[in-house]
Amino acid sequence: MKEKQLIYEIKYLSTNKDELVLNETVFHNANGYIGIRSNFEEGYPEGFDSIRGSYINGFYDFAEMKQAEKLFGLVEEKQTMLNVADSQTIRIILDDEEFNMFEGTTLESKRWLDMANGYTGRKIVWRSPNGKIVEIVIKRMTSFYQLSLFTIEYSVTALNFDGEVRFVSSHIGEVMNYSNPNDPRVAGESFKHLLPTVAKIEEGASYLTSHTSRSGLSVCTGVKNILSKECSMHTSIEEHSSTSTFDTSIVKNETIVLTKYTVFSDSIRHKDCESHAMKEMEMALSVSLATIYGYQTEYLNKYWDNCFLDIDGDDDLSLAVSYNMYQLIQSVGKDEYSNIAAKGLSGEGYEGHYFWDTEMYIQPFFTLTNPSVAKNLIEHRYTILEAARDNAKILGHKKGALYPWRTIMGKECSGYFPSGSAQYHINGDIAYSVISYYLATKDIDFIASKGAEIIFETARLWIDAGNFYNGRFRINEVTGPDEYTCMVDNNYYTNASAQYNLQWASNFYYLLKSTGKLCAIESKINLTEYEVKEFERAANFMYLPFDDKLKINPQDDSFLSKAVWDIENTPKDKFPLLLHYHPLYLYRHQVCKQADTVLAHFIFEDAQSLDTIHNSFKYYEKVTTHDSSLSTCIFSIVASKLGLEDEAYGYFGDSAKLDLFNTHKNTKDGIHTANMGGSYMAIVYGFAGLRLKESGLYFAPTLPKIWTGYRFKVNFEGSQINVQVKENQSTFTLINGSKKQIYVYGKEYELKDTITIMK
Amino acid sequence: MKEKQLIYEIKYLSTNKDELVLNETVFHNANGYIGIRSNFEEGYPEGFDSIRGSYINGFYDFAEMKQAEKLFGLVEEKQTMLNVADSQTIRIILDDEEFNMFEGTTLESKRWLDMANGYTGRKIVWRSPNGKIVEIVIKRMTSFYQLSLFTIEYSVTALNFDGEVRFVSSHIGEVMNYSNPNDPRVAGESFKHLLPTVAKIEEGASYLTSHTSRSGLSVCTGVKNILSKECSMHTSIEEHSSTSTFDTSIVKNETIVLTKYTVFSDSIRHKDCESHAMKEMEMALSVSLATIYGYQTEYLNKYWDNCFLDIDGDDDLSLAVSYNMYQLIQSVGKDEYSNIAAKGLSGEGYEGHYFWDTEMYIQPFFTLTNPSVAKNLIEHRYTILEAARDNAKILGHKKGALYPWRTIMGKECSGYFPSGSAQYHINGDIAYSVISYYLATKDIDFIASKGAEIIFETARLWIDAGNFYNGRFRINEVTGPDEYTCMVDNNYYTNASAQYNLQWASNFYYLLKSTGKLCAIESKINLTEYEVKEFERAANFMYLPFDDKLKINPQDDSFLSKAVWDIENTPKDKFPLLLHYHPLYLYRHQVCKQADTVLAHFIFEDAQSLDTIHNSFKYYEKVTTHDSSLSTCIFSIVASKLGLEDEAYGYFGDSAKLDLFNTHKNTKDGIHTANMGGSYMAIVYGFAGLRLKESGLYFAPTLPKIWTGYRFKVNFEGSQINVQVKENQSTFTLINGSKKQIYVYGKEYELKDTITIMK
Repeated sequence: MKEKQLIYEIKYLSTNKDELVLNETVFHNANGYIGIRSNFEEGYPEGFDSIRGSYINGFYDFAEMKQAEKLFGLVEEKQTMLNVADSQTIRIILDDEEFNMFEGTTLESKRWLDMANGYTGRKIVWRSPNGKIVEIVIKRMTSFYQLSLFTIEYSVTALNFDGEVRFVSSHIGEVMNYSNPNDPRVAGESFKHLLPTVAKIEEGASYLTSHTSRSGLSVCTGVKNILSKECSMHTSIEEHSSTSTFDTSIVKNETIVLTKYTVFSDSIRHKDCESHAMKEMEMALSVSLATIYGYQTEYLNKYWDNCFLDIDGDDDLSLAVSYNMYQLIQSVGKDEYSNIAAKGLSGEGYEGHYFWDTEMYIQPFFTLTNPSVAKNLIEHRYTILEAARDNAKILGHKKGALYPWRTIMGKECSGYFPSGSAQYHINGDIAYSVISYYLATKDIDFIASKGAEIIFETARLWIDAGNFYNGRFRINEVTGPDEYTCMVDNNYYTNASAQYNLQWASNFYYLLKSTGKLCAIESKINLTEYEVKEFERAANFMYLPFDDKLKINPQDDSFLSKAVWDIENTPKDKFPLLLHYHPLYLYRHQVCKQADTVLAHFIFEDAQSLDTIHNSFKYYEKVTTHDSSLSTCIFSIVASKLGLEDEAYGYFGDSAKLDLFNTHKNTKDGIHTANMGGSYMAIVYGFAGLRLKESGLYFAPTLPKIWTGYRFKVNFEGSQINVQVKENQSTFTLINGSKKQIYVYGKEYELKDTITIMK
Repeated sequence: MKEKQLIYEIKYLSTNKDELVLNETVFHNANGYIGIRSNFEEGYPEGFDSIRGSYINGFYDFAEMKQAEKLFGLVEEKQTMLNVADSQTIRIILDDEEFNMFEGTTLESKRWLDMANGYTGRKIVWRSPNGKIVEIVIKRMTSFYQLSLFTIEYSVTALNFDGEVRFVSSHIGEVMNYSNPNDPRVAGESFKHLLPTVAKIEEGASYLTSHTSRSGLSVCTGVKNILSKECSMHTSIEEHSSTSTFDTSIVKNETIVLTKYTVFSDSIRHKDCESHAMKEMEMALSVSLATIYGYQTEYLNKYWDNCFLDIDGDDDLSLAVSYNMYQLIQSVGKDEYSNIAAKGLSGEGYEGHYFWDTEMYIQPFFTLTNPSVAKNLIEHRYTILEAARDNAKILGHKKGALYPWRTIMGKECSGYFPSGSAQYHINGDIAYSVISYYLATKDIDFIASKGAEIIFETARLWIDAGNFYNGRFRINEVTGPDEYTCMVDNNYYTNASAQYNLQWASNFYYLLKSTGKLCAIESKINLTEYEVKEFERAANFMYLPFDDKLKINPQDDSFLSKAVWDIENTPKDKFPLLLHYHPLYLYRHQVCKQADTVLAHFIFEDAQSLDTIHNSFKYYEKVTTHDSSLSTCIFSIVASKLGLEDEAYGYFGDSAKLDLFNTHKNTKDGIHTANMGGSYMAIVYGFAGLRLKESGLYFAPTLPKIWTGYRFKVNFEGSQINVQVKENQSTFTLINGSKKQIYVYGKEYELKDTITIMK
């Protein structure tokens, strides 16, 4: 990775309200366990909208979600990710003037994210109203090495004066989640989810423990402040907050540094989270901050080496792609208790819930670059498999597991089931991700211990959900990925997904049987060969709708009979349509929010002829609004597949820049993790044509016209492969690991060192 | 009407909790404007569940109805019928012992409803713990002559003592609606909808005025107590209640009577409801109570004459049918501000909302027996036509009107739109009722002034909701009457309804044109002949699904491809299914809550061959649970039509007795008005085969085996006709009005005096 690609910097910080709240997201620090929005330590003036949050992945409270009309099985309680504490606050008082960027004069300022070293920085040269000039440099880090740890290194240098300086550092245990009654994407009202349990000071560190109001969980945060200079120091606890005050003097050109360590612990991972927090604090303090920084750099060196991706000819894009990959490693859960939320750990949009975004948009990136992270994600799904079995029962099923459409700890959180629980394809998506992980790693032991159980239970669900009619296996009343038509019959994507899931249930059954690894799972879930035959029969006779006239796969049984929405003549301000039209009106029309059948054409490209895929692509292109950020990357990938190079690049467009350049105007609520994975996919699966198939690893590289070339690395069955694409040629290099068979443009090659293939 | 049919009496009153709350419904007094549940005046002991309510038809407040997930156009505010005041309370103190049936000894008791004279009675002979014996007789009436008036005539006779007696009569203005968080059929939580405005005493009467919290309405109740004997009397007002105390003495065998007049007025009908209440009180007091009773009897004489129906051979049934007809005239709104609620004015179930029940189950009774009441009902729908236009816009339509699925004042109150707003057939139902009214009365002036506007605007909606595909006009994403499949394509009932609506829009257009009555409406709503041609085209090419293999009309496009629900092997305690299965699971199966296609076969019997209707009937019979009380009456009617006499009687079964004998165990929340109309229909439209068609009035009488005969009267085009059915013969007599052509068993007859037709 070129260095320029790993630094994102803003010079001349604006104090515009909207930019401040946006940058809280853009510069947030996270490591997959904790996430801290980048608020100014010193706060903002009154009236500034700010989402001052610190989050723990997978930590939740239950919240009431009343249904307007009670019906059996409708969800009336959701989980919500909590803002757990505020340890960001640090105030600096120079004699009697308090530093803040809204008074005095900011002579110099910048804010940056260093993705090579894993921290964010802010630097300000500030002249106080009375003329004192200070340089303030703040480095913030959430450690990848010690996941519980968040540090702030706060340096103050007096540039033109001698005087007194006071540091006031707070640790606030009573915090609330952000709410906005007018925005359906965040919580509508605030509720006190966290209640104080214990507040204490031990060895100069404050520990605040709170418990959740309904979910029976606890969280402890510990904060320790260390000043680089002798001082008079005072720490007090009042209610559920602790404040440390450091008084000292400063002379011209002297730098004083406050280092603030925060550790987080929760009772999901550690029964006694308070003593665990103390151990974590001890660990943090046992080495120097420089050493911790060193670990961070080391971790990221390895990360960047694994997911290396470089584009020649578009620096902004290269930066955006790096930014996205950085956010993905910041966001992804690193244990079985967590997954990757729609907004990562960067904000409260979608309340920290996990969706299919994980499996279909994000996991493919990790599967290719960090298979162990992909494995963690599957482990989380395995952890909630029992909850998915319960969910299936609620939905009326006699067997199998149905994953919740949105969740943290496994229970469904969808308030509106027609575009929530009805999205049965989540089962197929999770199965697909397990199968892809297997195809990329051949990790049969993991399949035997966990993966197969997921595959078998989801396969069982399809058998219970579908039925034979006229000799075909049909799946009625489900919602596909496109939420502009809900509860349809034989959604092509869902049926194709189910077919793949069922086929692989059979594949894994015989694979495990032949390797002697079947017994444990077979007896655990009482699987019989008779059932496996049922899986095969349903897969073989799966009904995949096809329209003879248009020679396309209809999105579902009724899609083509509906009136076509006049997208062209719909006023711009009516998009996204879901904010302006009643669901019934949307459902009654041929209009798609996002790729649905087209997504199926990407992941099951061998299920249809290239002609059908081409016809489908052209058809759905006309009726898709791309109101979801998950859409254009898929259209781009399929356009690449079809050789529609201009369209492929057109759909790729600025999607990679969504959050870094706030193109959707809602990054303040958090990053769009799925889009980040999706834009990676548009390059590697799209332009480079990578596919993981049972028969092996496939490529079909193309080069967008305005690029001069691109390079990336992938992992396949334990080997690392470098791919370099230039005009008319692509070069494949085995960096490490054993030789592999690869397919390029459909032709098989043995990759031992380097192969260059001309287009 | 035989007298025995018009008295319902219970002897030996039970003080069982469940029976008390049930009888509050069974013996409630109502007149279409006001409804008072029959609570004991003296109250019940603590811990008794009681719904002590007084209601005004069409009077409402808005209540919040939060959606679990916000989506465009979803209803977040409903209307709710209010409990407006309590004027039932009367306490009797004999020396120092207060009468109540839970202490002392009840020596004799009965409770009765006199449907000939329009009042309810309670008589108790009670011995106090100290041995005083009194006879108490209480008559309660809501006047049909003066709709605002509710009277209680409370007589006390000392049977074995002389002593002091005190009457304490209350008028309570601060009341709440009943709530039960565990029952989805009534409100889940209480909210103070009514806030005090003014309380005052004028000329010995108390007037309490309150205003609603959100809907901007006011209500005033006035109470005046008159004691038959000189006494010391004191009236006081405290907070928003008034209490009148009457102290006097009583001697053995003396009877003292307290007459309590309550008048109700509301600001929907009368801007200044307080002065209007005073006028109403003046009017009530201007004649004697005996005179008011006389008016009541007179009103009912006429009513019973119009809707005369008598069954030989089943007295219980005759009583139940009379009870039902009595409840219908008690419940039906008598002005344009009100309609008939699902529970009439007898309880708070369904919150006083109006549904399609009116048009499809109740109005047919009034159309035949009291066409002016049917006209009132249409007038109410006309009053809310503008709201229906707004509703259409919310649902995305560019033109036309879409009636709300449930409402009081016109705005939609459905919390769950898939089985609420999606029931577009409400438009067809209302159109059908207008057309039926026209067919029964030929009242073209009413069509010109109001009816046609409804027909044209609903027709426009169909044009906007449907679309042509493969040469057929289709209507997608609607819910038919059967709520166990929602948001389907081409629901047969809906499409057939829409076709009828569109056809009649054209019929009325040309009818009005030819009679010179078109101009006003044509210019008011900018109707063009081009649009009428569109109506015709859609009607002519309406897609009515037909299955070639089964030779039936499928309920919708996908119905037959779904798995058939195993009704037989579903445990009894899992019915009604909607309380035990997730909607998605229900929707995925062939299982019907109620008549859907079969209802279409009843009202559009000429749209299909008898064979098809027979096949459909037999098919749907097997997949229908009749979980709705609106189902069996329709199956009975169609069975009659098909000559399936045993089945017709089997489906008719005890449906007429639902409320009088509480067979559904939920009459405490209110009567089932639609079932009452439906059981009437099962006799007159079912057994007697009555149909209103463009070509005239049809009969095809059959006689259930266990009856010896039945008789009823109907109105047709201003003439009154008596129909007498006996074994193998039926006799038609023109009672008054001009001669009519009628069709019996398909053959035309001229009815001048009497015709007897042998079967």
